[in-house]
Parts: sequence; structure tokens; C-alpha cells
Amino acid sequence: MVLRRLASTAATSASKFSLAPTIKQLLERPPTADHVTTVSGWIKSIRKQKNVSFAVITDGSSAKGLQAVLLKGKDDEFLRKLTNGAAVRLTGQLVTSPGSGQSHELLVDQHGEVAILGECDSEAYPIQKKDLTPEYLREHVHLRARTAQIAAMVRVRDSLSRQIDKWFASQGFCYANTPIITGNDAEGAGEAFRLAQVDTQHPAAAPTGAPLPPSEFFSRPAFLTVSHQLHLEALATAISRVYTLSPCFRAERSLTGRHLAEFWMLEAEWAFPQNGVHGVCDLTEALLKDVVGGIIGSEDIDVLWKDGDDSRRQILLDAFSHKTPWTKMSYTDAIRELEVAGTSSQFEFTPTWGHSLQSEHEKWLAEKLVCGPVFVTDYPAPLKPFYMRANDDSHTVACFDLLVPHVGELVGGSVREERADVLEKKMGNLAGSEWYLDLRKYGGAPHAGFGMGFERLVSWISGVENIRECTPMPRWAGRMLL
Amino acid sequence: MVLRRLASTAATSASKFSLAPTIKQLLERPPTADHVTTVSGWIKSIRKQKNVSFAVITDGSSAKGLQAVLLKGKDDEFLRKLTNGAAVRLTGQLVTSPGSGQSHELLVDQHGEVAILGECDSEAYPIQKKDLTPEYLREHVHLRARTAQIAAMVRVRDSLSRQIDKWFASQGFCYANTPIITGNDAEGAGEAFRLAQVDTQHPAAAPTGAPLPPSEFFSRPAFLTVSHQLHLEALATAISRVYTLSPCFRAERSLTGRHLAEFWMLEAEWAFPQNGVHGVCDLTEALLKDVVGGIIGSEDIDVLWKDGDDSRRQILLDAFSHKTPWTKMSYTDAIRELEVAGTSSQFEFTPTWGHSLQSEHEKWLAEKLVCGPVFVTDYPAPLKPFYMRANDDSHTVACFDLLVPHVGELVGGSVREERADVLEKKMGNLAGSEWYLDLRKYGGAPHAGFGMGFERLVSWISGVENIRECTPMPRWAGRMLL
Repeated sequence: MVLRRLASTAATSASKFSLAPTIKQLLERPPTADHVTTVSGWIKSIRKQKNVSFAVITDGSSAKGLQAVLLKGKDDEFLRKLTNGAAVRLTGQLVTSPGSGQSHELLVDQHGEVAILGECDSEAYPIQKKDLTPEYLREHVHLRARTAQIAAMVRVRDSLSRQIDKWFASQGFCYANTPIITGNDAEGAGEAFRLAQVDTQHPAAAPTGAPLPPSEFFSRPAFLTVSHQLHLEALATAISRVYTLSPCFRAERSLTGRHLAEFWMLEAEWAFPQNGVHGVCDLTEALLKDVVGGIIGSEDIDVLWKDGDDSRRQILLDAFSHKTPWTKMSYTDAIRELEVAGTSSQFEFTPTWGHSLQSEHEKWLAEKLVCGPVFVTDYPAPLKPFYMRANDDSHTVACFDLLVPHVGELVGGSVREERADVLEKKMGNLAGSEWYLDLRKYGGAPHAGFGMGFERLVSWISGVENIRECTPMPRWAGRMLL
Repeated sequence: MVLRRLASTAATSASKFSLAPTIKQLLERPPTADHVTTVSGWIKSIRKQKNVSFAVITDGSSAKGLQAVLLKGKDDEFLRKLTNGAAVRLTGQLVTSPGSGQSHELLVDQHGEVAILGECDSEAYPIQKKDLTPEYLREHVHLRARTAQIAAMVRVRDSLSRQIDKWFASQGFCYANTPIITGNDAEGAGEAFRLAQVDTQHPAAAPTGAPLPPSEFFSRPAFLTVSHQLHLEALATAISRVYTLSPCFRAERSLTGRHLAEFWMLEAEWAFPQNGVHGVCDLTEALLKDVVGGIIGSEDIDVLWKDGDDSRRQILLDAFSHKTPWTKMSYTDAIRELEVAGTSSQFEFTPTWGHSLQSEHEKWLAEKLVCGPVFVTDYPAPLKPFYMRANDDSHTVACFDLLVPHVGELVGGSVREERADVLEKKMGNLAGSEWYLDLRKYGGAPHAGFGMGFERLVSWISGVENIRECTPMPRWAGRMLL
């Protein structure tokens, strides 16, 4: 009785509007057996027999499709249109499936209905059932989410971002939107895209004499942001814990599978951090363990690892199943380990204190030495940007890179330099950045933050090595379809 | 006993890492009286008396700060540094407050501690306690989140986006990221920002003869997207319900309080819609009622409406408190109503069938005729983009604009034209858009969608009229700070 009352209250307070359940929702809460059920989706595969056809229908809501059993009741002409890729609406009964591999199936008998909502010419259809290469699918990027792998990747991104939002809310963080268009060419070296100048006259305006030369829309040069950190820092002096998951851009010419010209970054900044850079590592580790832990065993991740390397997957699972904390190691200790390993000259570049870790060094640390994620902390100051907090040793800064097997650098973070005088010396003559100093001058509090490449996170947990397959519609040098 | 067991289970299963509670979290779950509590934040105001000082501390987590009672125990020199804007860490006991206006206060007696983490020169501090104009705060955009109003707006954005995510998940939608950089200059007329060409040689590369002319980074002209709709449509042919909350850009020269050059849009596309354009309106209304209904009575909204117009607020509350559906009206009926009203010549522009509704017409419909939100549906085809579905009357399309009082157009949506042949005719010679036709050719299903300006939504529910105050760091023609 109590339960019944609760249920009816819930029904009243909920919105009356509701779309028809997706296949995922249907299978999670199957209706009673005599309930007439309508399912809309696309035919993923179909097998036609004399008196019955078996079709797998997907609506993209889950890795599993729904098997529909279509009893003969249509003419051949109609059946011919039931092809892979066709959009259909089926009405029948959801019944317990006698077959293995699925809990339920949709039985469409003579009382049921099959409507074709959109035909698909199976000869011309670019998404054939046979294995399609990643390169081919990149050429058909507008259709590639119709493959199981790309669809699973899109859903994994959805799951990740929801888990991330949940985690940050639990820790009192506020989600904030910082600008994409900025006056900062933050990390310099021409890696920021710049906006073209605009015609001073609006094209709709009637011509009033000679055209004026193009000018800056914002009255000064404008770039696409390479990072949201500086803007988040400004917000974190007011709302002490902020984060964003937002697009970033780099005009990098790199054509490797680890770089995109447009990518998403998870960035967080918070005031009043504890335990220096180790506290920042701890927060990052807790975030990743909570966020990824809930997803790593999902059907979608299984789809993505299907053709992947089992030993790599085991290393990943170990990182999330072990209760022990991830390894932390100072840059100085890392160099020492690399030097020892380097005596058997397995490296192309000699590891040397004061020089950047090369990709091969990072791989060795994560894949050979630690065999799991490793935080490398306290890099030499000249290797890192000006905003990282100087350590007392005056040589290193309170920063870390999180290196993970087969991906490399996944996260970079640091305590930020909150001392206005120290920062001003490091910045030198950065005209236009007075605002960044202001943040320290007026109640500047100790604070810290990190940035994580979202596509690299997807790559790591899914085993999909090329990050062009970790975002729905990738952009890189020379390539921008749609 | 049962409760105790539940509590200990929860503690075990939760992540071990946790930041110190924010002021909001502390006040929601106050510790027991004898617990030593540490609070970090900024002084919002301070009143110094002979033996005691009263400071309000904020960490940006909620509209309410925490009052701290500091019993004398420090010298005058130290007390002088406790100024508005200074960053502090206070340790004391959270006790029930004897004063009104707060449930708890932090008592810092001789056993407690006051640490100044960042001083703030109260003379020079740009954020004085006196009322600061919006224009002044825009000039100090890096500091303006320290005001109660801007901080409340940032938190309202956070609340809105969380409620939006929750609602779409409940309806089986998948959150997806579509590109910012695109080859489409979608709505034409030069309103899309274009990326500048890049130097063909990387600046880091050594000069190897004469410099090459600049070229397109992506091998073709690249723009910042004005809408995510077309890309979402591609995804919705695979994952049948998708949405995004993402930046959009328009190089508009408008200097009104209703336009930004960079803004966020909530856009959704779904396959297999029901009830034509009315079904799209119903979904939009359900979304808004569920999302806004949970926020409209919050402390943060109260802060934002503080100096607002009470009658406007009542109109807003009515829209969300009444159980009746919002008004739907065809464009043709709207024109009829406007014609009647226009006979007393209250309009500058004569309302005429076939012409766009002017801003004054939209205002009259929402503010005078309906006195609430109104869906205007089925506009003449030539007034709307090519992708909207043609109605059977062959003159109008299955679309709507949602007009709301004092904001104007908040949402625009439609059923999309899913018939390849009809669409192809309407598109004419749109080379490079073959992919968009492909979506219809291969299992093209009926689908629908809408776009909602996120800053306009914030403006509507908060009574903040100028949308430059509805985003943390606004950009408009001629203006881009930071």
C-alpha cells in the first residue's frame, strides 16, 4: 500500500510529456506481455526465411539491438525493401526470447505492423556490413555513427561527461563556460588559430563609396583558445571551484593519431588546495577512478575493445581495480630511472635532467617501469609555462604530467603561482596580461588546476588508438569534412 | 542501528578522496557542535567592534555567505589586513546562530585561527561594495564574478545545464559534441567568422628559401559554426536522439543587449517524432517546465531578480506555475491578431502575411496578447531555411518560434524535411552539401529538432535584461577582453 502511494505521487509530479521509450529503455523496463509495443529504428541486419524474417533493429540507444521476428504477412515487393539501413516502425509484442543472446524480442504477427519510414538502397549504401576501414569511414564521416564502433564511442563520451559532471558536483565544483574567442595567443609559437579580418561594411549595407579595408571584428587580433585555464583562474578567485568541458583548438600540423586541430578539454581550477602538487594528483586520480570505474565494464566499452589487445586491456583494468594509489614519481627520479635503463641504450634520445621527456621516455615509464598510470611531478621550471608555482628549491615547479600506457600524457596540472611578485618576474613584459596579475593582487589565494584531453581519455579507456575515432567528426591539418 | 549501518556503508563505498566541504555543503550538512571546522574564502564584508569582529565569508558556492564571529585575539596590524576582498582561512566552531538571517555562524575564539592567504588593498580594489554599474563591471570582467549578481548568474548556468542534462537523459537522449570549425557558412550573409589563413611554413622551421604564400589550414575555407543542427542531424540518423549544449558564433554587428558574437546554444535533434510540429512544441515546453521549474525559486534567482520588475517576474512565475499548456498559434492566426491590433496603429511596421514578424510584433504577441510564452507555428516557407519540412498546403513549413515576454524569440524549431526529392529541389545548387542529402537517401527517417539560446534562457528566468550579464565573459562587436 505504501509503495503504491509512493508510485502514484511520483507519476503526478513527473512531467506528463514523454517520448516513446527507446530500445534501451524498453529492455530495461519491459512492458507486460500483452502490451502492444512500437519500436522505431533502423535495420542493422535481416535474415529472410520462407515464413518468417529475423531483423535486428537499432535506434542507437544501446550497443545491443532488438531482434524482431516478422511473421510472413507481406508481399515479396514489400519484403525486398526491408534492407540493412532502412528506417522502420514495428508494432508487435515484446516477448521473452527463446533464443540466447537477448532477453526479449519483438514478435510481429498478423496483428502487428511493419512500416517503412525510409528506404535504403542496399547496393549503393556506403555502410555495408562488411568490415570497413577507419580511413574509409573518415571519408564517410556523416554516416559513420551508423557503425557499432562509432556509435559506442559517442555513447561512451556521453557516459563520461555525465560521470564527470556528477563527480564535480559532489565535490562542490561549479560548471562554467569560458570564452572560445580570446585575445591570448596563450602558448605562443603560432599554434593558435586566428580569426580572419572582416569587411568593414556589412554585405547587406548599400555601397556608400569606396570599400573600406578589412578590420578586426573585435578591434584587436582574435584567436581560438588553446586552453581555458587562465579564464577559469579568473572565475576561481570568486567561485572557488570551477571546471569546464569545452572545445580547444591548436593549429598543429601533426598528423599522428594523438593530435586533433579541434578537441575537447576537461579543465578544473580550485582555490585553497591542500598538500601541494600531490593533492592535485590525488584529486585527479579520485576523479578518474570514480568516473572511469563506472564505465569500464559497460557494453559500449566491450564493443570498442572487441578487436583490441587483451594484455593492454588487462593493464587498464588493473589501474582501476587495484585499491593501491597510482605511482607518483618526481621528474628527477624519473630521469634517474631512465638513465639506468638508457645504459642498455634502448632510447633514441639520451634522457638528461633539464630536457623534456621524449615520447619514448614517457612510454617506457608508463608501460615498462610502472606498467600503469604514473604521475611525474616537479619538472624543471624552464620546461613548463610561467604560471606554475615555483618550488622552494628554485629549480623546479609544483606540477605533474599523468602518463598512461599507450596514450602518453593524459593530464597536465600544477599548483598555480599565486604570489604576484614572483609571477610578475616570470611573466616579463606581457602587455595585455595585467588582468592576470590583478587576480593575485586582490585577495589572490593559493589555487591549483589541471587539463585533461577528453579524446585521449576516450582513447585510453576504449583501446581505440587513433583519436580521430574518439570524436564524432574529427578535424586535423588538411581535413575538415562537413 | 539500521541508520548507523547504512551510514557506514555509504562512507566505505564512496571515494576516499574528498576536498574540504564548501560553505554550501557545510550549511547543508552542519557538523556536530564540538567539531572543529575550517572555512576558506574571501571576506565579503567586515564590521569591526572593540572586542569582536563580524565578517561575512564567501567561497562562491552559494548566494549566502557564512558569518564568522572573530573574538579579539589579534593585534591591530593584523586586523587592518582583514578587508573586503582578502582571502582567508578560518578555523573555529560552527554553531547555531543567535542572529536572524542565518542558521549557523562560525565562532572563532582564542582556540581558533585566522590566516590571511591573500591580502587585498581596499583602497585600490576595483570591486568596492558600493553599487557598480554593468558597464564598469564589463570593463573589469576578470573580477566581476566577485559580485553577488555575476556569481549567482554563473551558478544559475550550472544549475540549468545540470537540469537540462538530467531531462534529456530521462528521455533517452545522448549528449554529443559536434564541430565548431566547419566548412558550412550555414546561414550565409557573411555572418560566420572565418579562420585566417596560416603561414605555410611553421614558424619554428628554419627558413628554406622564399616564404610560401599563406594557405588554408584545412585545405578549404573554414568558419566558426553558427549552429550545430546539420551535424546533429547526421548523428540523429544513427543515434536517434541527440543534443548538445555548445558554443556558436555570429559576426553580427548588432550592439543590442540581445546579441553576442559568441554564445551557447542548446540544440536537439531526434528521429521518429510524433504529432508534427505540435509534438516538437510539446517536447520543448516539457523540457523548459521541468528544467526551469526546479530553479526558478532558488536563492540565486532571487539575487538576480532583486532589483527587477515585480510584474515581469509574476508573468514568468505564472508561465511555470499554471498547469495549462502554453499557447500555440499559427503564424497566419498571429498575423490576423496583429492586423486587428494594428488598426489602432500601434505598430511602426504594418503586419502583413508573408513578411517576417518584427520585434514589436513578437513583443505584442507575448506581452500583450498572451501575456506569457507563445508558440507561433507554420510560418510561410520563404521566411524560413530550406531544411524545414514543407506542409501540405505548400505555402508554409512545419516550424515554430517560441516567443517569451521581454526576451522575444527564445527557441526556434521544426520538423525537418526528410524527403530527399523535396529537399533537393529546395537546396538548389548547394555543392558540398551532398552529405546532407545522403542522410535522406539512406534510411532517412522523419526527424525534428530545435535550438535555444542559452543566454536568452538565463535572461528570461533571471530578469537580467542584457545578455552581456548572462555569460561570464561576453564578446560582441568591438569588444573582447581577456
